[in-house]
Amino acid sequence: MTIKDIARISGVSVSTVSRVLNQHPDVSEEVRHKVLEVVEKYNYIPNNSARSLGQTKSDNVGLIVRGISNPFYTTIIREIEKDIEDAGYTMVMQQIAATEDELLAGAMMEHDKRLLGLIFLGGRFDYTRDQISSISVPFVNCSFNNAYGTLDETTYSSVSIDDTQTACEAVRELYKEGHRRIAVLLSRPDDGSVSQIRYEGYVKALTEIGMVPEEDLIISVGSYNIADAYHGMLEWLDKGVEFDAIFSISDNMAMGAMRALRERGISVPDQCSIVAIDGIEVSEYVAPPLSTYCQPMEELGRTSVELLTDLIEHKGDHKQVILPTTFREGGTISKRA
Amino acid sequence: MTIKDIARISGVSVSTVSRVLNQHPDVSEEVRHKVLEVVEKYNYIPNNSARSLGQTKSDNVGLIVRGISNPFYTTIIREIEKDIEDAGYTMVMQQIAATEDELLAGAMMEHDKRLLGLIFLGGRFDYTRDQISSISVPFVNCSFNNAYGTLDETTYSSVSIDDTQTACEAVRELYKEGHRRIAVLLSRPDDGSVSQIRYEGYVKALTEIGMVPEEDLIISVGSYNIADAYHGMLEWLDKGVEFDAIFSISDNMAMGAMRALRERGISVPDQCSIVAIDGIEVSEYVAPPLSTYCQPMEELGRTSVELLTDLIEHKGDHKQVILPTTFREGGTISKRA
Repeated sequence: MTIKDIARISGVSVSTVSRVLNQHPDVSEEVRHKVLEVVEKYNYIPNNSARSLGQTKSDNVGLIVRGISNPFYTTIIREIEKDIEDAGYTMVMQQIAATEDELLAGAMMEHDKRLLGLIFLGGRFDYTRDQISSISVPFVNCSFNNAYGTLDETTYSSVSIDDTQTACEAVRELYKEGHRRIAVLLSRPDDGSVSQIRYEGYVKALTEIGMVPEEDLIISVGSYNIADAYHGMLEWLDKGVEFDAIFSISDNMAMGAMRALRERGISVPDQCSIVAIDGIEVSEYVAPPLSTYCQPMEELGRTSVELLTDLIEHKGDHKQVILPTTFREGGTISKRA
Repeated sequence: MTIKDIARISGVSVSTVSRVLNQHPDVSEEVRHKVLEVVEKYNYIPNNSARSLGQTKSDNVGLIVRGISNPFYTTIIREIEKDIEDAGYTMVMQQIAATEDELLAGAMMEHDKRLLGLIFLGGRFDYTRDQISSISVPFVNCSFNNAYGTLDETTYSSVSIDDTQTACEAVRELYKEGHRRIAVLLSRPDDGSVSQIRYEGYVKALTEIGMVPEEDLIISVGSYNIADAYHGMLEWLDKGVEFDAIFSISDNMAMGAMRALRERGISVPDQCSIVAIDGIEVSEYVAPPLSTYCQPMEELGRTSVELLTDLIEHKGDHKQVILPTTFREGGTISKRA
């Protein structure tokens, strides 16, 4: 029984079956129901076709990348791929949307690909013990940690920057240059992920400075996409809120916002300063080059693989590693007169 | 005997052994010699650790990505990964530098990962029958073809745009708007790859128009990187060659050039028009948005997987598929008075 048999019997395409099994949102309830009925009837265990039935062992290490259009991941993926290979394993990658559940994708991949271990690149910061119980191989959270979760430090591994502290520094930098109406560009302030934790750094900075965070200054665009940042920024600008600076939770979103500002005739940095976090290559080539706090991408990837292989080979215990960022000056911050 | 044993006996790291086996350039002759001696002595066949010795079958399909910092590939990789998975196979990816040999990497991967088939994303256009004989599984060239090679059409598969024709159209567009001093920004005019074939479209357009291509107007920066395009452009500008437009062989390189032009006070598009090929998302967010011919990225990926799975499953023969591009207007082309 393969996924193709399930598709044939259900009268739908293989990719529809795959979407159902991966709990993808864009499948109708009717189709989902029909497919799951067939899956149950034939007691089908997703196992990537009959070809793999002969296998009992693998050297596969999984990489689940959440947030598929994020250019920030490109360098990290490359480093992880190289280091997994150098360590004698095979990387199996799956890219999922930021709206999908990485733990479910990981659990299915563990089963389908007989994984020895898993790296989650991007994900929620709020795993509970119950949620991670679906994963039975060692895993490492890369670029995020368990800040909002309930995991015991001895039971999980993560490699990340200090998101809150970096956001806090970024906002303080804007304040230091004289800005007092500092907006924050983010996906959602409560997404349990990067958007939320960096937003909290923004709030922390303002509070420490003695300013009151204002609802009006939250530019919440609902995703991490450059296109959504651009459109969301345009909409927000049309509200006419007074502001003199923007802290963007990512380089990618900052580039979308910069186009919106340009189209509304707002000059960066003269009329609006911008600072972001991530430090992707291309944001150094926009006009003006983006001022941003760079994540140590190679090191994030390398350390994740080191932690994971140590766990797989029983040479190390769980660790939470925090890596430092470096400020790239750029040209999007001006001193306010 | 594993790669780790070879490393131990040779007295070098696992990653050094891997670099030697992958013919990576940055290994000293001495080290290379020492490692290869050990490999020969122990008759070591690179097979990704002892873990995989138990396996006789796999459902692996390889993806070799050549040109690791090319953002153009991101969308294609995502589509290929999804479609390989939907077809019931497992994607194993390796990203190599544009200076590395993708056929060698493919041959090693075929062996190490017991591949059923291979997709080359980016590569040379000049494969010979002898060169491809190292690959014994079906493979598909994605985003390039055999324009400079000697392969029989019944012996290879490719999915690409018509690079020469698209470059030709791009240059004609600049000519139509009144530009007469059209420079070309490229990696090398004779790299046997995308740079060369798009350069030939440039030459073709000029020749058909009745203009003589000039050596002075070739901006040859030696790579496809945005940083090299930026630096190469600055150097070229310092020569003081008269020009009023640039055809860039890629979006990524065009963005590097735009920063250089900006820094030298040359306004785009008023003093210099630019047109490119690729159509990556971020180039729509620079100022002005880049005018470019978009490759059908999803379709390139999807068609490659279709061709490959048909070959693997003996349901189809070799084909050379040419897909159309679409022009994205942008704002980098002006009419010359």
